[in-house]
Amino acid sequence: MTSDLAARMRARMERLYPLCRSITGEGVRRTLDVVAETVLLERHAVPSGTQAHDWTVNDEWTVRDAWIADATGRRVVDFRAHNLHLVSYSVPVRTTMTLAELRPHLHTLPEHPDWIPYRTTYYHRTWGFCLAQRRLDAMAEAGDEASYEVVVDTTLEPGELTWGELVIPGESTDEVLVSAHVCHPSLANDNLSGITVATELAATLAARPHRRWTYRFLFAPGTIGSITWLSQNPDRVPSVRHGLVLTGLGGPGGLVYKRTRRGDRPVDRAAAHVVTRREGEVRDYSPYGYDERQYNALGFDLAVGRLSRTPHGEYPEYHTSADDLAFVTDDQLVEAYDATLAIIDVLERDRAYRNLSPYGEPQLGKRGLYPTTGGRAASDAVMAMLWTLACSDGSTSLLDIAERAGLDFARLDAAASDLVAGGLLAPE
Amino acid sequence: MTSDLAARMRARMERLYPLCRSITGEGVRRTLDVVAETVLLERHAVPSGTQAHDWTVNDEWTVRDAWIADATGRRVVDFRAHNLHLVSYSVPVRTTMTLAELRPHLHTLPEHPDWIPYRTTYYHRTWGFCLAQRRLDAMAEAGDEASYEVVVDTTLEPGELTWGELVIPGESTDEVLVSAHVCHPSLANDNLSGITVATELAATLAARPHRRWTYRFLFAPGTIGSITWLSQNPDRVPSVRHGLVLTGLGGPGGLVYKRTRRGDRPVDRAAAHVVTRREGEVRDYSPYGYDERQYNALGFDLAVGRLSRTPHGEYPEYHTSADDLAFVTDDQLVEAYDATLAIIDVLERDRAYRNLSPYGEPQLGKRGLYPTTGGRAASDAVMAMLWTLACSDGSTSLLDIAERAGLDFARLDAAASDLVAGGLLAPE
Amino acid sequence: MTSDLAARMRARMERLYPLCRSITGEGVRRTLDVVAETVLLERHAVPSGTQAHDWTVNDEWTVRDAWIADATGRRVVDFRAHNLHLVSYSVPVRTTMTLAELRPHLHTLPEHPDWIPYRTTYYHRTWGFCLAQRRLDAMAEAGDEASYEVVVDTTLEPGELTWGELVIPGESTDEVLVSAHVCHPSLANDNLSGITVATELAATLAARPHRRWTYRFLFAPGTIGSITWLSQNPDRVPSVRHGLVLTGLGGPGGLVYKRTRRGDRPVDRAAAHVVTRREGEVRDYSPYGYDERQYNALGFDLAVGRLSRTPHGEYPEYHTSADDLAFVTDDQLVEAYDATLAIIDVLERDRAYRNLSPYGEPQLGKRGLYPTTGGRAASDAVMAMLWTLACSDGSTSLLDIAERAGLDFARLDAAASDLVAGGLLAPE
Repeated sequence: MTSDLAARMRARMERLYPLCRSITGEGVRRTLDVVAETVLLERHAVPSGTQAHDWTVNDEWTVRDAWIADATGRRVVDFRAHNLHLVSYSVPVRTTMTLAELRPHLHTLPEHPDWIPYRTTYYHRTWGFCLAQRRLDAMAEAGDEASYEVVVDTTLEPGELTWGELVIPGESTDEVLVSAHVCHPSLANDNLSGITVATELAATLAARPHRRWTYRFLFAPGTIGSITWLSQNPDRVPSVRHGLVLTGLGGPGGLVYKRTRRGDRPVDRAAAHVVTRREGEVRDYSPYGYDERQYNALGFDLAVGRLSRTPHGEYPEYHTSADDLAFVTDDQLVEAYDATLAIIDVLERDRAYRNLSPYGEPQLGKRGLYPTTGGRAASDAVMAMLWTLACSDGSTSLLDIAERAGLDFARLDAAASDLVAGGLLAPE
Repeated sequence: MTSDLAARMRARMERLYPLCRSITGEGVRRTLDVVAETVLLERHAVPSGTQAHDWTVNDEWTVRDAWIADATGRRVVDFRAHNLHLVSYSVPVRTTMTLAELRPHLHTLPEHPDWIPYRTTYYHRTWGFCLAQRRLDAMAEAGDEASYEVVVDTTLEPGELTWGELVIPGESTDEVLVSAHVCHPSLANDNLSGITVATELAATLAARPHRRWTYRFLFAPGTIGSITWLSQNPDRVPSVRHGLVLTGLGGPGGLVYKRTRRGDRPVDRAAAHVVTRREGEVRDYSPYGYDERQYNALGFDLAVGRLSRTPHGEYPEYHTSADDLAFVTDDQLVEAYDATLAIIDVLERDRAYRNLSPYGEPQLGKRGLYPTTGGRAASDAVMAMLWTLACSDGSTSLLDIAERAGLDFARLDAAASDLVAGGLLAPE
Repeated sequence: MTSDLAARMRARMERLYPLCRSITGEGVRRTLDVVAETVLLERHAVPSGTQAHDWTVNDEWTVRDAWIADATGRRVVDFRAHNLHLVSYSVPVRTTMTLAELRPHLHTLPEHPDWIPYRTTYYHRTWGFCLAQRRLDAMAEAGDEASYEVVVDTTLEPGELTWGELVIPGESTDEVLVSAHVCHPSLANDNLSGITVATELAATLAARPHRRWTYRFLFAPGTIGSITWLSQNPDRVPSVRHGLVLTGLGGPGGLVYKRTRRGDRPVDRAAAHVVTRREGEVRDYSPYGYDERQYNALGFDLAVGRLSRTPHGEYPEYHTSADDLAFVTDDQLVEAYDATLAIIDVLERDRAYRNLSPYGEPQLGKRGLYPTTGGRAASDAVMAMLWTLACSDGSTSLLDIAERAGLDFARLDAAASDLVAGGLLAPE
């Protein structure tokens, strides 16, 4: 089961990895095609030039080819070898330059001489190449006056911004938003991991017979994609009650939950419970990061947290060619999927109950809920029942009790079901 | 004085130790007789079959004798040698069995091969013997097919559930409940220590000329005893303002106060102050433990905490024959008595005052309350006066101030008396 | 600039150090003269016998001379050699005594045999000398029966209690009170450091073109001086919104801010922000210390905190001749001045703003406020803008944001100015 899940998540990432995604263009559309093989994705688009609050949708960027070739015609930097070689949104150029002239357009990571960095220039019309420091060093052997052919065969023309949505209806029309960005080229942890986990979650939730909430999965380019969605859906925004941005779930380190801006929303408590019990970490909100910064902006004020492992900028492979498929492990992905589902299960199942036998502890033994020989310590299952009875005053929820008792929410939920069946508890 | 107190507490325990207590029966009644030699105990009883909320009062259990004898007639396990040998509430049996047949009825502690465990079967009609692992090992040398005479000469017949109460009236009819369970057979820390400390406290409080609160001491069997009292006294329950369950006060370790379910009651603050200043520990409520779980049940919601030392289940001697009179020391009992009285003194004496000279610090020197040579640091006694003056706004109580100042409540109380005498402070 | 400041502060202390200050008298008046050379100080006085709430203004104390001379007429203890030799407020005496008779009037510090202690007897009419233990040891070589001439040539006669005030008006008539005591004789850290820093602050604030608050600088004798000011200015007391007592700013150790009695006033938050970012320490209020104990008394309830370094009584040089000009360093004084001004700047500049572009993050790049190449981490300056936008809901202030973001208030203030200039933010 788990290995099937792992295999599906990896196979999906392997197909997505070679695509050259950016904030617009064919890479995004082909990414959505892959997701749509598993779930019923709706595709949406707005034309370039569309106003989205303070932003304007860019022209669509298309790459046919891009390279730097030496005097012998050999490509020393070649977009076809790695998507990261070309700065995203580079404008077209076709010229010959000396290395000295070329240098301001070259980006390297001297401290990691074999890695290619990832750079973008979405809103400033220029061009550039990213390459390994060793490659640059080799070029430099020919001297600063050596001449290079430079070709960026791209177009920047009116097109569209594309995103995918999947809505899975539930008992309430209030929504849980799950959001993953789809604009990064060949980078596995950031964010093929988020895309593949979100796809599996969507499939799992769609297969359930009952959901308390409506679920909206959003696969959109970062920043401009989420702002455009927010701008195009003013009627849906107020329905978002809980939300999670998923990213960086397959790399190293424990789970890291980043709180919503307000920090005390139900999703914050649900995620903190799940993540801390898995020895993960909970961090306060910061206005830097992924699309949570848009959802949490004052004008929207949505309760959207973020689940990742070691966050952006804190691992050296971040935004480099070292964030490849080998950087992401199956175990980390599967645990992240489990944890995300556990958070959703808290949102689905948390509620307050009322103890129907509140005058002292009810005699659990005569109902078969208690060990018959006295004098020994209580099990976790018995403790879960005792805590549920002790605290179910009609307003204290199972998650409140789980936090106080130091027990897993799932165990409290099971105890509550047993007590309801035994006539000792009723949902409020 | 203290050694008199220690001697009285120990003498009482020595008389109580041999009695075979259970949740009903002669052991309880003889225990109450011993307490009644010191304080004016009222005895109460209800007949077997009485309904007490979700529980029903058991039949009364009486042991005449019980043993396991080998083929030569020698008693290898003998109730007369130790009360713990017989599982409490064992039904009568008189038969001959092989060791193999007998084994499911035998309880030992392999990790403590010389100790006899304590087991009960109040609500499941069966029988059993508890014995040292070494005794069982010796029996096993004769082989599993060796034959034994097994006699449990008990009765389980309609009788009564008995408890003792002592009410010491005070200025207010609101009550402080002090509760100790009296159902454990030969176990010294759990709970002869609680019984003997409670008895001394009752004597001390009864001898005082004035009490702010009415005190109710309850000596009752665990669980069924407290639930029966709660069930029989619906009119008294709402008068209980503060309470303490006393148990395990003479064993090893510092004092441990367990908070009420709500955790922020006056008794919680009083006990936390006293216990932490004695390097003890304060723990959150848990619905497992002693009778505090009944008093704190949602339907009663009484502010009853629990004072002990190392709690049940956290010391290996718990519920074994090693919890004997030598396990309990005089020093621990005396300190526990002192601490309990200090908690009660906070409940008696805590109140808010009003500073009558609030415009700057009053000149304590001209009233003989301040050292005459300036330039040196202030003593604790002076600091207690300064803190009392600084904070006595008519709503901040002495305990509030003690906690903030990091000073002992008793010192603040003395400072307040001096300041009232000096005309600088008035009770609000 | 800084070295000018340091030089001015030190020159002022060098002139103040030799003066024999006490709670009344010529030493105080000459101290105010020195301060008045830099700022426009108003001088106030009330006659001896004036009632100040629970206190009465003392007679004025004047020292002409004081000494202990041995049989040869040699002065072995001489007030002219060090102001601390005479217990402050010693009554006149002119007699001959044996060393044995003299001893109860002699104060030494055996653990620091070369230091002279500082002692006072303001409200108990007696006399005494303070001297180094080594000096006493030398006297003792002549035996306890050796005879000494003892002269205390002082007067204690009706005069006045004097203080200085400087009021610098601001936009609001509500006041910031800065208070330094001026009653200690030759002690540099306690409190020439406070006097000299307060004088520089007053000069700096007076030179500013705009102030949000009115500033009141008070240079007054400790305890009786502040109580007299409070008593004489009932109409001004309610205008004091924020305040700081300045003392002990030039000795060893980091900055220590002592909170107001309530502990949650704006000055507490401002000072905690500034001090903790300089690796200083914040402490809770205690009713012992300097004049903050009068300002915070219940009847006034003023929000006056205290800024110092290692507080009174926690460094061995405290109230001894070792608290001399060498004990105070320029670097410590300059940092203390900077920190005090930073606290005042928070009080001046903290306010709430409203984000005018709250629907997602505004596109800072098109306004030249964001780096053009994406993919790298954000600078502190960018983070300050993002935090200000994320939290400026019209009620959250810059200090709230600074604390949450872990950024310096000054950086947030600069970001807010940039955003206001960019049309993205407005003061509320």
